[in-house]
Parts: sequence; structure tokens; C-alpha cells
Amino acid sequence: MRKLFIIGVGAGDPDYITVQAVKALNAVDVFFVIDKGEEKDDLVALRKEICRRHIQNPTYRIVEARDPERDRTAAAYTSAVEDWYDKRALIFERMIAEELGEEGCGGFLVWGDPTLYDSTIRIVERIKARGKVAFDYEVIPGISSVQALVAKHRLPINRVGESIHVTTGRKLAEGLPPGIANVVVMLDSQNAYRGVDPAAEIYWGAYIGTPNEILISGKVADVAETITATRAEARERHGWIMDTYLLRFPQK
Amino acid sequence: MRKLFIIGVGAGDPDYITVQAVKALNAVDVFFVIDKGEEKDDLVALRKEICRRHIQNPTYRIVEARDPERDRTAAAYTSAVEDWYDKRALIFERMIAEELGEEGCGGFLVWGDPTLYDSTIRIVERIKARGKVAFDYEVIPGISSVQALVAKHRLPINRVGESIHVTTGRKLAEGLPPGIANVVVMLDSQNAYRGVDPAAEIYWGAYIGTPNEILISGKVADVAETITATRAEARERHGWIMDTYLLRFPQK
Ligand SMILES: C[S@@+](CC[C@H](N)C(=O)[O-])C[C@H]1O[C@@H](n2cnc3c(N)ncnc32)[C@H](O)[C@@H]1O
Ligand SMILES: C[S@@+](CC[C@H](N)C(=O)[O-])C[C@H]1O[C@@H](n2cnc3c(N)ncnc32)[C@H](O)[C@@H]1O
Repeated sequence: MRKLFIIGVGAGDPDYITVQAVKALNAVDVFFVIDKGEEKDDLVALRKEICRRHIQNPTYRIVEARDPERDRTAAAYTSAVEDWYDKRALIFERMIAEELGEEGCGGFLVWGDPTLYDSTIRIVERIKARGKVAFDYEVIPGISSVQALVAKHRLPINRVGESIHVTTGRKLAEGLPPGIANVVVMLDSQNAYRGVDPAAEIYWGAYIGTPNEILISGKVADVAETITATRAEARERHGWIMDTYLLRFPQK
Repeated sequence: MRKLFIIGVGAGDPDYITVQAVKALNAVDVFFVIDKGEEKDDLVALRKEICRRHIQNPTYRIVEARDPERDRTAAAYTSAVEDWYDKRALIFERMIAEELGEEGCGGFLVWGDPTLYDSTIRIVERIKARGKVAFDYEVIPGISSVQALVAKHRLPINRVGESIHVTTGRKLAEGLPPGIANVVVMLDSQNAYRGVDPAAEIYWGAYIGTPNEILISGKVADVAETITATRAEARERHGWIMDTYLLRFPQK
């Protein structure tokens, strides 16, 4: 039976990769890569660097496909996403059927951890549900950007006994549920931290684990402007940005 | 200057360890271990196995100390914990000063990820704040039990666009904030999942990543009793249990 690995490679530093992931990399015959068009050269380079460093026997192949168009104008966000999943599933399905022999092993490299704000598992589940190609698959966890962020700030995510919330910039802007003490924010393109309690502490990081890493922390009231300026300047300089932050609210 | 590494070793499978952690393990002269008394033999064995597998040059030493007593009867939970941190900080401080030369490198091995429901960073910060021994330190992220759980269930933690909540059994029993869609529960000794919406899906795992791993999933209404029975039986058989679960509430 065909086997697929969905491999978390960690979020930035090539050394974030686990021994389990290295073993999986070395078992893969064909890596499936979706060319995102807008995909950042630095990320593509990092993925190649991971393969170069950790694969002993370089007989693997890389098969690339173009990412389907996503309808970003659609009124219903969720159904546009669903539609795009279906298109991706069809592309992956064809790649698996055409490129992988009955006993072949395929791999998807996923940034950070494959279970956190990533669609690969959902798409692979969709292909499985369609039942046109038979395969088994395994998910290999990876160090997420959340963990990289707090490790670099040398910070426990939560204070003693407290809960942790992980959300998106979009959801933070809509407002948090009451009583949230610690929130990690990902995918924030709107600087949503500017709308929170200015007494909160913010621990911010961009390009974490890479040579371009930037870390800033302090009270929101004191550092929000610096972060906004640093963000804009870094995005301008590199052409793209990936950043994450932890907000810690005053203890009641 | 002395250097300390707080090293996340992953939560169960020795292959969860990262390349970064392996490099840190190999840089350490002295590992500091707190004997928790009640500490499970299997966990001690796993830690030794990690050192045996991944350390090339076995010139390192292991220094052990007894864990201070923790006042579990204290009325104020937080101040009892604070008091116990202080005691631990004193023990660690003495170990660092006595066992590590001015240029020495010390290591703490932490189960899973050191930023998630673990006190090592807080204790090291306390020693630093006291200022009696000078050192620099670094936190190395590790695969947490949360990630191991969802990877084994091959499950994205969140549905598209949703937030994620991570909490303790104690907090779940007190009640969640409104609008939580996905919650991962750790440190639950009271089977708090029995008190939630029976229409929720539960993805439960014990001893994840180890040879004793058990996974159960389904609607809370259908599997809660099985989980309670399995938990009790496994704890009886092994003398201890470590389990975690994700609850996914019906979409509004
Ligand atoms: C689509 S999500 C993927 C998350 C990924 N699966 C993980 O485990 O980190 C992309 C978001 O992750 C965060 N991110 C990923 N890598 C990062 C890095 N090296 N530094 C800062 N943020 C990062 C950013 O918030 C970004 O918007
Ligand atoms: C004190 S916390 C430490 C968490 C750890 N730092 C981590 O990153 O997973 C201990 C809790 O972690 C969870 N846990 C740790 N390892 C586990 C495993 N292998 N299987 C299931 N649950 C685990 C359990 O909920 C347990 O009560």
C-alpha cells in the first residue's frame, strides 16, 4: 500500500527538525510541493536546505504543482476555502496516483507543526474520503512558531494554573472571550494588538529561528508603535513577513 | 560564563527529540535531575534512553537532588506553589554553583515542551533574579503532548479559522469561557470531560508516543464511559497515567 508522510519541519531553524521527521524524510521517494506563486524564496530555500542536510540517500524526487486559484472576493469566507480545498485535493490526488507506485512513499513538508493552522491534513483526508487512490498516512509533529516564539523569549506560555488561547489576528480584532489570560496570535495582518488593553504585556517575534529573527517585548502601551514600525520596515525590506506574538493580560 | 540549557525532549517517543536538542545534549557537562520521589520509573528510563541514544561522548555527569516537600494542604494554592518554587530555586542554585565550573555547561531535561505547564523556566529565572550565581541560559523547544496527541489522531487542532484553547482539568471543571470551539485538556485527574456537552467530540490519548499508547475518540456521549474505565484500568496496571485530550464542540 502507498504511504504518505505529512512531516512538520519546524518553524524557522533547520535544527528544529525532529529525529522522527529525519527518519520520515529518508523514507520518502517523492516529495509533493505546491508552488504557491507568492511563496517566499526564503521559505523554499529553507525547505531545500532541510532536505540537503538531512537526507542521506538523495534518490528522492520532487514533484511540483501550481496552487489552484482561491476566490478571495467570495462573500462567504468558509465556502471559498472549502472550494479551494476541493481543488487542491484533486491536484494532490492526481500527483499521488501518477507519481507514486503501489508501494511508493510520498511526503509533504509542512512549515512548523502540521496540526496548527495548516490545511495539509484536511486535504489528505479529503482524498482518502474520495476513495480513488488507496494509501495510508502518518502525521509527524514539528516545532511550531508558537513554541519557537516563547522559547526565544524564554517564557512559559502560561502563568501557574492558567489557560492558554491561540488565535488569529482576525479573531483577536473581533474580541476575545472573557477571562483569557494568555493569548498567542498568529496570521495577524492587521496589527490587532493595537486594539487590546494597553496594560497587557506583548512578546513579539518575526522570522523566528532564522537569521533575520527580530524579538520585541514590553507593555503594549510602550512597544506597540515600535512593533508596528518594525513590522512595516521588515516587510518592506524582505518582501514578506511572518510574525507571531503572545499577549499576557494583567492578573485579576 | 556558565551556560544552562533547558531542553525539551518531547513527550513520549524518544524520536520526538529535535536536532537542536541533540546538539544541546552533547554540549552539556552536567545534567541536573530532581528526584520527584513519586516519579515514574518509565519516565526516568525514557530520559536515560534519550541520553544513551543521542550523546556521542559520554563524559557528562548526572547530579541528582531530592525534590522539596510541597504543601498540598495549603489553603492558597498559588502561594504554596510559590513557596515550593523558592525552595527548588535554592536547591538548583546550590547545584549550579557547586557542580559547574565558571565555563561549565549544565542541562535540565524537560518532558515535552519547557514552556507548557512546566516550572523549570520560572525556577531558573528566580535563580537569575537572586543574582548569587552568574549564568546565561537558553530554552530549547520540544514536541509537546498536545502535538503528539493530535498527530496520532491525525487531526488539525482547529477547524478553519477557529481558535484553540489549552487548559487544565481543574479549569475545565470550573467551566470554559463562552464560545470556545476546541479545547485541549491536560493535567486532568478528575475526568472533567464527563461534565461537558455530550455532543462534543473527544480525542483522548494516554502514554502517547510510548509502547503503552492508548487512543480513543468519538462523541463524548458514546465514549466517556469507555475512557473512564480504560483510564482507571491503565492507571491500575502501570501504577501511573499521563493522558491528554482534545474536545471539539459542535459548530454554531
Ligand atoms: C499558516 S500559519 C502556519 C503555522 C505553522 N503550521 C506553525 O506550526 O507555526 C502561518 C503563521 O505562523 C506564524 N509563523 C510561522 N513561522 C513563523 C516564524 N518563523 N516566525 C514568526 N511567526 C511565524 C505567523 O503568525 C504566520 O502568519
Ligand atoms: C506537567 S504537564 C507537562 C506537559 C509537558 N511540558 C508537555 O509539553 O507535554 C503533564 C501533563 O502533560 C500531559 N502529558 C504529557 N506527556 C503525555 C503523554 N505522553 N501522553 C499523554 N499525555 C501526556 C498530561 O496531561 C499530563 O498531565
